[in-house]
Amino acid sequence: MNTRQRRIAEGALFTDQYQLTMAQLYYRFGLHETPAQFDHFFRSYPEYGMHKAGFCINAGLDTLLDWIREARFGDEEINLLRSQTGQSGERLFKDDFLTWLQNNGSFETLNLRSIPEGRVIHPNVPVNIVQGPLALAQILETPLLNQLNYQILIATKAARIRQSGNCQLLMEFGMRRGQGKGVNEGARAALIGGADFTSNTGISHVLGFPPKGTHAHSLVQAFLALGQTELDAFRAYADVYPDDCLLLVDTIDTLESGIPNAITVFEELKRKGHKPIGIRLDSGDLAHLSIHACQMLDQSGFPEVSIVLSNQLDELVIWQIIRQIREEAPQYGLDPDQVIKRLAYGVGTRLITSAGNCALDGVYKMVAIRKDQQWKPAIKISENPDKIPNPGNKHVWRIYDERGYATADLLSLSDEELKKQDPIVLRHPINPHQYRKIPASEITRIEPLLVDVLLDGEMVHQAPSIEEMREVRQKDLEQFDPGVRRIMNPHIYHVSLTQKLWDLKQELIRETLANGGSNHILP
Amino acid sequence: MNTRQRRIAEGALFTDQYQLTMAQLYYRFGLHETPAQFDHFFRSYPEYGMHKAGFCINAGLDTLLDWIREARFGDEEINLLRSQTGQSGERLFKDDFLTWLQNNGSFETLNLRSIPEGRVIHPNVPVNIVQGPLALAQILETPLLNQLNYQILIATKAARIRQSGNCQLLMEFGMRRGQGKGVNEGARAALIGGADFTSNTGISHVLGFPPKGTHAHSLVQAFLALGQTELDAFRAYADVYPDDCLLLVDTIDTLESGIPNAITVFEELKRKGHKPIGIRLDSGDLAHLSIHACQMLDQSGFPEVSIVLSNQLDELVIWQIIRQIREEAPQYGLDPDQVIKRLAYGVGTRLITSAGNCALDGVYKMVAIRKDQQWKPAIKISENPDKIPNPGNKHVWRIYDERGYATADLLSLSDEELKKQDPIVLRHPINPHQYRKIPASEITRIEPLLVDVLLDGEMVHQAPSIEEMREVRQKDLEQFDPGVRRIMNPHIYHVSLTQKLWDLKQELIRETLANGGSNHILP
Repeated sequence: MNTRQRRIAEGALFTDQYQLTMAQLYYRFGLHETPAQFDHFFRSYPEYGMHKAGFCINAGLDTLLDWIREARFGDEEINLLRSQTGQSGERLFKDDFLTWLQNNGSFETLNLRSIPEGRVIHPNVPVNIVQGPLALAQILETPLLNQLNYQILIATKAARIRQSGNCQLLMEFGMRRGQGKGVNEGARAALIGGADFTSNTGISHVLGFPPKGTHAHSLVQAFLALGQTELDAFRAYADVYPDDCLLLVDTIDTLESGIPNAITVFEELKRKGHKPIGIRLDSGDLAHLSIHACQMLDQSGFPEVSIVLSNQLDELVIWQIIRQIREEAPQYGLDPDQVIKRLAYGVGTRLITSAGNCALDGVYKMVAIRKDQQWKPAIKISENPDKIPNPGNKHVWRIYDERGYATADLLSLSDEELKKQDPIVLRHPINPHQYRKIPASEITRIEPLLVDVLLDGEMVHQAPSIEEMREVRQKDLEQFDPGVRRIMNPHIYHVSLTQKLWDLKQELIRETLANGGSNHILP
Repeated sequence: MNTRQRRIAEGALFTDQYQLTMAQLYYRFGLHETPAQFDHFFRSYPEYGMHKAGFCINAGLDTLLDWIREARFGDEEINLLRSQTGQSGERLFKDDFLTWLQNNGSFETLNLRSIPEGRVIHPNVPVNIVQGPLALAQILETPLLNQLNYQILIATKAARIRQSGNCQLLMEFGMRRGQGKGVNEGARAALIGGADFTSNTGISHVLGFPPKGTHAHSLVQAFLALGQTELDAFRAYADVYPDDCLLLVDTIDTLESGIPNAITVFEELKRKGHKPIGIRLDSGDLAHLSIHACQMLDQSGFPEVSIVLSNQLDELVIWQIIRQIREEAPQYGLDPDQVIKRLAYGVGTRLITSAGNCALDGVYKMVAIRKDQQWKPAIKISENPDKIPNPGNKHVWRIYDERGYATADLLSLSDEELKKQDPIVLRHPINPHQYRKIPASEITRIEPLLVDVLLDGEMVHQAPSIEEMREVRQKDLEQFDPGVRRIMNPHIYHVSLTQKLWDLKQELIRETLANGGSNHILP
């Protein structure tokens, strides 16, 4: 794809074909401008094989907003749609619809309420609520899900990896094995979720984060192939980057060659008044090698240089490395915490692809439609009660307990005033026998989670910087019980319905079943 | 990211930071224009949990070539690199290097030999061979691996799914859950590998393939929410698309409501002289429902309409559906083959993400460097013999046996003339005791796999169309033993070395070990 083709492939036509065929149908039946509400939410936490997340981190909104700002059905897009024929050989999209699309196909006319990026989010809680002309809200489904599913997935993985690594420095290194151009959005999400830097040069500059990276094995290989040595390669590196000297020490033999050569170069740097940065270990038993590296560096007078670990890391591998260091370091007379404190992590493939669970199950469901000047809640019955969406126009609240920890996310109807309820009743979304009551006296804060982003054609949301999103994430995570945050077998956080929303949902289900249909609106 | 930012993030800076820091080091030491050779290959077939591929399909070259054509270190890129500072606060990249990069940083000056897209490829066989200035060949590593790792992965998955689905119509539906903008490259690769169409509108138009898609549950939901019925929604669809009428029948109840309503609409269409296309099943027991759908459609006089299956499909799920139909259809008086023949598959998330194995382990290794006007083979020793690359400037040949089947891919040194060897010796790449000899009389064809793509600054390769690549793939697959093609427990295809390449590799390993280093060049 050249630049022009990429513009077409990533613009307003970055959607599934059926969104457009449905949009034309709505147009033909005069429904295209009927206001509809779609909720975006995900159904379950990512499950990475034998372990499962207990929270997600929101990311992707601003990327979606950029798309919304730029995506237009211009002449080129319209001509492509005009060129498409059906089985009969006739054109699939007719001129009247295409004219409407060209004149009205701006997604900025939709209203959008969203949970901000960086916030901790949970299943079945609307992360984005879209209201507006049915045809446009429908077309938006694909680009919205594409961006948010992936970025939430990666921000979540990054947060877990950061968590398991005791919040030491974390770098995203996955560009070479990530899924095509998506790595740029993945790197962005990784930064929001917990990575401190990425090796991805372009996106780093775009986001105003300095990219990180030093050298690969090929540098040492090139020197060797030209008849020189590893030490020559390290000296060359130190010569060019005296104040940013981080050396990859495993090209030949980590303990016998790499670390001793690095120490030689560090001593030379020190004599010249420079401060060496660190070494990187990319193969072997990383826990064991970290301990030995610490010893060797300590003994040579470099107790402060970092040890960067890489090679197929993820949250479990890091967790195990730390555990092994805790057990093994004392045998070598080292304080495990001192070893762990100087570690940094370069995480590649398994972060950028969310290995183990490479797709989030985010969905975008119609929950209300406006008829006769009123919003009518819509429902869809499924044999699986987990798949019945929560109907109607809603608010989302986070309830904080006496400890200051978030205790539940609560979905209410949009006209409910939670602060007047005492106690607040939290109904399980499915199980009629499961609910709890919290007296107002035990609640320290009731926080609305959704903010207005697009309102009556205006972008009313000032996008925070990535740095601000990172602060939001850090602060937000601290507001959750450590049990929710742990990387294996986490405590299940409550997502509940108010009594009023519960009653509406039950009534809709009963009426729908009574009518034998799958969907119904209240009179 | 807006358009300008995306251009920066996807252009020449779409690379890992360490490629640039190494490039500056090479520049500083006068090595930046030293010709080097890097081989791109993957180490093992994708392994999807309990099953593993026995072949891969090549894809991504033309996307990479587009990048090579367009990526330039222009003013904007150079200014961003100029702005970056190191730990000392000083600039990381100096003006002399940046000037060289701006004036010489065109990747079109590299020579590139490649296996064409659509071809069947195997581990450890160079898929691309890059020769040229060390600094540029190094920077190319990241964009090359990013594109090829992902597209090979998806083309391979698509080929497997097509295979398991008896080559019935296959559609790629994964845009909403794929990894960000990468879905565009994924859709392209899916088309090369075996999908007949994609629902992704933009990329379909760019590639000249009509996108496919009809309607979602939300269409039926919208009609229901507005007080109408599923039948009304179907009639509306048939009204707008009388010759392209494919109806999703599981919004309410597939057998009780969806299929009967679809048949009613099909009968109406038939009376008006239109030919209905089909139905889509998206939930429930797809094998069982397919059989019942067939019965109902047959009995109503629609034995020809298609049945499209979707919902978390992959090669194993499809394989099981077909198996179940074979067992179950006769109980209902149906010929299983007639049922299977009318099926089509919409495969989403598990295709576009290559679920089970979401990253290919493709690598890009330095295998030779030019010194004193001669190419010197380079090697790197590893404790794992699988990880020792095959050194030197090479050719790749495919040997066909008396049945006309490919029997081995053979790597030779570039100056070897295979046709003069009788017998041809095929050495196992690692095991010294494992080899075979094939007399020339048992060989029907020796085919060189690599073609020149970039040569002395010229693009000498005429990129085939996607349709041509699809034909290449289909024809190529037929040249492999069915055992290699099967989707579970495949027969392992041979990748071998000539005696001469084997000897060189052993000599280099011996000398390197004797010198205690990890790399060496012959004198």
